Amino acid sequence: MYKQSATRLQSLPKEQIQAFIKSFDTVLTDCDGVIWLFNEALQGAPNVINRFLEMGKKVFFVTNNSTKTRDEFLVKAKSLNFNMTRDGIISTAYLAAQYLKHRQFTKTAYVVGSQGVIQELEAVGIKTIGYGPDILQNGLASFVNDELKKNPEVGAVVVGFDEHFSFPKLIRACSYADDPECLFIATNTDERFPLPHCVIPGTGSIVRCVETAAERKAFIVGKPNPYICEALIAEHGVDPARTLMIGDRCNTDILLGANCGFQTLLVETGIHKEADVQTWLNSQDPEERKLVPDFIVSKLADLLEYLE
Amino acid sequence: MYKQSATRLQSLPKEQIQAFIKSFDTVLTDCDGVIWLFNEALQGAPNVINRFLEMGKKVFFVTNNSTKTRDEFLVKAKSLNFNMTRDGIISTAYLAAQYLKHRQFTKTAYVVGSQGVIQELEAVGIKTIGYGPDILQNGLASFVNDELKKNPEVGAVVVGFDEHFSFPKLIRACSYADDPECLFIATNTDERFPLPHCVIPGTGSIVRCVETAAERKAFIVGKPNPYICEALIAEHGVDPARTLMIGDRCNTDILLGANCGFQTLLVETGIHKEADVQTWLNSQDPEERKLVPDFIVSKLADLLEYLE
Repeated sequence: MYKQSATRLQSLPKEQIQAFIKSFDTVLTDCDGVIWLFNEALQGAPNVINRFLEMGKKVFFVTNNSTKTRDEFLVKAKSLNFNMTRDGIISTAYLAAQYLKHRQFTKTAYVVGSQGVIQELEAVGIKTIGYGPDILQNGLASFVNDELKKNPEVGAVVVGFDEHFSFPKLIRACSYADDPECLFIATNTDERFPLPHCVIPGTGSIVRCVETAAERKAFIVGKPNPYICEALIAEHGVDPARTLMIGDRCNTDILLGANCGFQTLLVETGIHKEADVQTWLNSQDPEERKLVPDFIVSKLADLLEYLE
Repeated sequence: MYKQSATRLQSLPKEQIQAFIKSFDTVLTDCDGVIWLFNEALQGAPNVINRFLEMGKKVFFVTNNSTKTRDEFLVKAKSLNFNMTRDGIISTAYLAAQYLKHRQFTKTAYVVGSQGVIQELEAVGIKTIGYGPDILQNGLASFVNDELKKNPEVGAVVVGFDEHFSFPKLIRACSYADDPECLFIATNTDERFPLPHCVIPGTGSIVRCVETAAERKAFIVGKPNPYICEALIAEHGVDPARTLMIGDRCNTDILLGANCGFQTLLVETGIHKEADVQTWLNSQDPEERKLVPDFIVSKLADLLEYLE
């Protein structure tokens, strides 16, 4: 069952590479470190993505970022010359909304999160509360005894990245989630974003906080959890066996592919490189072996010459 | 190695019970659910504790609560007729201060916590920053780029219960803790305090949040971690083999005893009862077997008749 090797794609004969490219008709790709880096497209990446689209393949940009709406991602993609449409943008805010929509959710969601989540939920007709600052005005006892009013309409807690995360928000989230009937979902579990002079906590740190106080696990819609696959099948009729997942981070992107039965391709323009893959290939830990991609290329643009 | 049974103390002959009482000269006891409940002493508990003291035994009240100072606990203990002195109060705020003191810590501590922690740290000469509200004034980008100034004097992050916990505090805590030279300690990991109409998150939820963003584990000074034993040996020359731990909660109190080599006594006036112990006795999980106490009594006052 374990993958015995990761193939450097360009070590194969050209016919095999072209056969590989014919073997998928859906492409999921991570964004940062694969097709762009911050606000610049990686060289040749728009050509590859646009060529896939011209070949009739479905392309989806899959990001764990929950702060932006799909329209905001689309504006960025277009400005960097990717010929994408809104349907091809899969953000975790969108996935959270899809999850609730497919469960015929009609109550109100208590959101720990940003405008991205709020707007995607409202786009599928779900009412939200919780957005924005929420601080103690008169101390904890007063908050708990007098100010905290649970809204009986709330039937879900949705946790994403929230720069206004605070103790009152934590109290509200875990108090709603204390009802086992209340849905409890989170966008992703990325732990942190290290900058040169500080660390920005990721959504994962907020999720672990609420989970600990709620004494239950959130349902995670983002990578590497396979819910994305369920959503893509439901909305777009995607066939997992004919799907390629491209990423730069094996513990989110490649693992997602492994969890969904996709083929997987690692590009070395971001986090992980062939040397990391070699370590996991030598590991006896089944969890590490799942991080091994099927194929490796140095950069996405390396595919261009094989796209007829 | 596994404990084969928990003995109901009063099932033993009187001479054996008296021999048991002679077998320890230090008593550690949890507070809530053992000697008092909220603001009332449990019936007979002051008599038992005071009799222990008269017999020359050292008695320590051990609480994971980090919000109060030892003096505040002492006022409560005295008002409920326990003849305790300040030395006998072991709070996690005090333990955090002891931990830093014994490491000759001379820098500043960044504290996510309440006055209890601040005052205990300052009582051993440690400067602190971080107390009180800390909210985003102008958005995350402005905070990260302009307002966040790391204090170069900070050499420790101390996390306790903090009703003002916020995203800026989380950024500061994990940014300081990102330096492996920075000490990172937490008072306790109690997850939550359920009330009838809501859930109050415990320190543990804040600790898990900071740990996730910092990508490292905090050193926990509170129960069930054995640091308490180290502190009691250093400060009071306690002999673990001649120490009894009394508690109502097996996964903190009794586990602490097991971790420290103390004898252990479960009282059934709080969280856990004999039926819970029976479940763990039947378990093959070594972690569950560690929750089994040596002895069980219905209530602390049951000991009174055996204290000459």
